[in-house]
Amino acid sequence: VSEAAQADDVLAEYGARLDEDRLEAWLDLFDEDCDYKIVSRENLRRELPLALIWCENKHMLRDRVVSLRQANIYNIHTDRHVIGRSRVIERSAGILTVEASYAHFQTDQEGVSRLFSVGVYRDRLLLRDGGLPLIRQKLVIADTAAIPSLLSTPI
Amino acid sequence: VSEAAQADDVLAEYGARLDEDRLEAWLDLFDEDCDYKIVSRENLRRELPLALIWCENKHMLRDRVVSLRQANIYNIHTDRHVIGRSRVIERSAGILTVEASYAHFQTDQEGVSRLFSVGVYRDRLLLRDGGLPLIRQKLVIADTAAIPSLLSTPI
Amino acid sequence: VSEAAQADDVLAEYGARLDEDRLEAWLDLFDEDCDYKIVSRENLRRELPLALIWCENKHMLRDRVVSLRQANIYNIHTDRHVIGRSRVIERSAGILTVEASYAHFQTDQEGVSRLFSVGVYRDRLLLRDGGLPLIRQKLVIADTAAIPSLLSTPI
Repeated sequence: VSEAAQADDVLAEYGARLDEDRLEAWLDLFDEDCDYKIVSRENLRRELPLALIWCENKHMLRDRVVSLRQANIYNIHTDRHVIGRSRVIERSAGILTVEASYAHFQTDQEGVSRLFSVGVYRDRLLLRDGGLPLIRQKLVIADTAAIPSLLSTPI
Repeated sequence: VSEAAQADDVLAEYGARLDEDRLEAWLDLFDEDCDYKIVSRENLRRELPLALIWCENKHMLRDRVVSLRQANIYNIHTDRHVIGRSRVIERSAGILTVEASYAHFQTDQEGVSRLFSVGVYRDRLLLRDGGLPLIRQKLVIADTAAIPSLLSTPI
Repeated sequence: VSEAAQADDVLAEYGARLDEDRLEAWLDLFDEDCDYKIVSRENLRRELPLALIWCENKHMLRDRVVSLRQANIYNIHTDRHVIGRSRVIERSAGILTVEASYAHFQTDQEGVSRLFSVGVYRDRLLLRDGGLPLIRQKLVIADTAAIPSLLSTPI
């Protein structure tokens, strides 16, 4: 299996576990020493520090899942990710840096599906023998920060 | 070629043959002993028996294609599928179970393209030596049943 | 790496370089003797000669990039491509013909992301030892020509 295909496999799991609301299994995709950040393309370009979400380690990401479990009471929707082919940007000792574009759709309680966010994932993946790589770092670059919904949702 | 890649190849054909309105070639992707069902995510969750389409064998699927050829006179649009990477859920003797998220767009006669349906495919694929796997069972789980168009269209 | 995967890699680069507004690097994906055309599905079906863009060689494509650099002053948006799995249509001496469906989104200055165009790419790729294939010919078949934006943009 090629490096791009390994990254595709991780990203497909990433999207599916969010879409199936299996947030605890989604956490399992991350390395203990991980960094998860959502920024807008514009803020990244301007080098502004503002992030929509920033979890600097897996404990913070676990806390986020706990609060999402509560927030979902007020904001019921379902998610669907369609993710493009990964491009390998860099490979160093055991770490694969990839990028892949995504489209994230949401369906509300009235049964209307809408485009929620498009953008690109920039992932640093920790390669493992005989297993899915772990996400060491994930930067979600959303094409807009004007997201019509709860900001605390992973993308 | 990996199992996920083989599934990707079948799904790409599945989408393309629908999009090109080659419904008879689309039928060729199915095993004679096949099952094709479209359900909404909500009905699947509630274990409700209601399906948008349910063809329990290939004869029923052929009948569906015949009626689509007539229905299309009244509901002219073109389709476009963009399908994500397949995830292998299970492999048993000769059968591969995979899931892949999809976005299905339609373009009407006024030339407007819109999101039609998002959801996930759950396929059981019959592996074959030196050929594309055949679809033994396909469950289309649409994120909403409130689909703004003719319900008898494959997704 | 399979032929479909090689094509996936080229298409992923194609989309990413457009999305990152790296138009000059995007040009590098094309063979010197290339042909780039955007047509609507309807015009292709009717065999009408009208194309939204037609560059019959790489010089014309370079000119297009120069004029885009100027046009962008008046039409600021960002692009995002999500591209499906490639299907190999034909392989002959060193040339791979593939098709892949795409969804192209745009985000405007108000921060609203919208579907811009869906359709299918038909590419003839020049295979190269140890490198990404080059695009010899690219036909973008957009599902509609009624594109709500500047028509001179690559898709």
